[in-house]
Amino acid sequence: MHILIIGAAGMVGRKLTARLIAEGGVLDKPIDKLTLVDVVKPDHPEGFSGSVVTSDADLSMPGEAEKLIGSRPDVIFHLAAIVSAEAELDFEKGYRVNLDGTRYLFDAIRLANGEDGYRPRVVFTSSIAVAGAPLPFPIPDDFHLTPLTSYGTQKAISELLLSDYTRRGFFEGIGIRLPTVCIRPGKPNKAASGFFSNILREPLIGQEAILPVSDDVRHWHTSPRSAVGYLVHAANMDLDRVGPHRNLSMPGVSATVGEQIDALRRVGGERAVNLIRRVPDEMIMRMVAGWAPGFEAKRATALGFTAEKNFDEIIRVHIEDELGGCV
Amino acid sequence: MHILIIGAAGMVGRKLTARLIAEGGVLDKPIDKLTLVDVVKPDHPEGFSGSVVTSDADLSMPGEAEKLIGSRPDVIFHLAAIVSAEAELDFEKGYRVNLDGTRYLFDAIRLANGEDGYRPRVVFTSSIAVAGAPLPFPIPDDFHLTPLTSYGTQKAISELLLSDYTRRGFFEGIGIRLPTVCIRPGKPNKAASGFFSNILREPLIGQEAILPVSDDVRHWHTSPRSAVGYLVHAANMDLDRVGPHRNLSMPGVSATVGEQIDALRRVGGERAVNLIRRVPDEMIMRMVAGWAPGFEAKRATALGFTAEKNFDEIIRVHIEDELGGCV
Repeated sequence: MHILIIGAAGMVGRKLTARLIAEGGVLDKPIDKLTLVDVVKPDHPEGFSGSVVTSDADLSMPGEAEKLIGSRPDVIFHLAAIVSAEAELDFEKGYRVNLDGTRYLFDAIRLANGEDGYRPRVVFTSSIAVAGAPLPFPIPDDFHLTPLTSYGTQKAISELLLSDYTRRGFFEGIGIRLPTVCIRPGKPNKAASGFFSNILREPLIGQEAILPVSDDVRHWHTSPRSAVGYLVHAANMDLDRVGPHRNLSMPGVSATVGEQIDALRRVGGERAVNLIRRVPDEMIMRMVAGWAPGFEAKRATALGFTAEKNFDEIIRVHIEDELGGCV
Repeated sequence: MHILIIGAAGMVGRKLTARLIAEGGVLDKPIDKLTLVDVVKPDHPEGFSGSVVTSDADLSMPGEAEKLIGSRPDVIFHLAAIVSAEAELDFEKGYRVNLDGTRYLFDAIRLANGEDGYRPRVVFTSSIAVAGAPLPFPIPDDFHLTPLTSYGTQKAISELLLSDYTRRGFFEGIGIRLPTVCIRPGKPNKAASGFFSNILREPLIGQEAILPVSDDVRHWHTSPRSAVGYLVHAANMDLDRVGPHRNLSMPGVSATVGEQIDALRRVGGERAVNLIRRVPDEMIMRMVAGWAPGFEAKRATALGFTAEKNFDEIIRVHIEDELGGCV
């Protein structure tokens, strides 16, 4: 099997690469080739004996998608996107990368399908940003998509294209609406959602973290391990079971900030909790008010997608995967 | 006021032009200029004393949208599209006309907005084809959009763009999801939905009509007069009341084919009903099974959009508007 990962240099892309190498195969066949693509050249992965191509290509440049599809990968993970804040700041770049790039990819596959019947599996990462306030809790699978950001709009449009191109038989697509990934490894970043990770990750290693919202803010989370798990499951599952609606809200953990802090207390004690400094930020509070509190995810659960059950588990995953098992 | 109608040569476009001329104004200001555009040059309208420009332009050709926006129309009606069957047969043409054409228009307005703050009102005709089976009855306003045709996908994507461009302040958009327009005037055509009109229009003038589905098929209808009424209301209403979700399912008449025939009997008697010939068509039956049975349309109704209450009214409108008031 030849696997193409577009957006391979990002956090999820790197973890996905490592997981695929560890599993060795997809759809009961060994992986013999990996093509890893991102706007910065991905690192050569460790522990893989097959053929590897790494490339710094920008999917949003006309012609790049055709090159990637020229080698006819069997499974394509399309993770490439600019993030919400950047898509909001730079309208044209957001549409170019998150919409045009996706459409170039889908059209390159469509044309290849017309040439020789090529019909790969396409696993696309969408986002809970496709949902926009006012939102019920939990959000049912058949709730309408009314994104309130350009990023969410671009993801929702890509979902519609994925369903239509799949229905027309050009490829076998599946869209995965990722919850907010928590605890993100690495350093604190400036994403508006960064605090959800910061208030756990930093206190666990004895560092201070800033909490800009109140404890009753409820949001929808999954661990990096589960996020990668969805994608691997999507690559392996029987897609005939999915039916014509190809985009799925994933299972996850709905928790308030207060519940996150309670879980931190159970693992790291009062000492860790005391490292959270409350610095209210009106702008972040306003943004977060429109974010998804949680999904029913009945369809995805019935299709075998899984996540953690609570924040204790999410913290334990972080400790196992990022801190060598110890705090 | 300068009004631009894109798709002015079609049935709805011609009736809209006539209605706007009859009303004389939009937003309490007189209409002094009409620009009427379609892929075939629209007829010069009757009874209008202001300036008229008619043009055969194809919005899906790069550069055409900029030309149309160059004259800075105050209100833009975007009705141009290829129909469902054609979009299904010709994939590339459907995306080019129904998606790229719409995006060219929206981007031309966005760039003009950046130049001089131009911010017109944009009334866009969407379709109930954005909804896809399995569908509840009635379909609530917050039900997800899962189109099962390329046409429906293109309309749903255009709706998302309309909301995002409006949110960003480039224009004031409103999307109108038209029910199936019934009774369509003119000759029977080959559209799969044509029979809904044919079985009323033809018997009313003593002609035979073919019914390819069973009497219990339920669908969602509006008269041509009401369809134009939605657009005129959308051009005049206070858009601040709409909020961030800019696309509205319109009120309409939900009726089974049997109920349509009962209404025909009340107007034209058994003689008219006997002109309906039942010729079951498996393909049309399969298609129709996925179509919308009816919408709640609570938001649109609260915002002042109106339609007929039943098929007796729809037939009366047809007799008044198309048959000079007599059968």
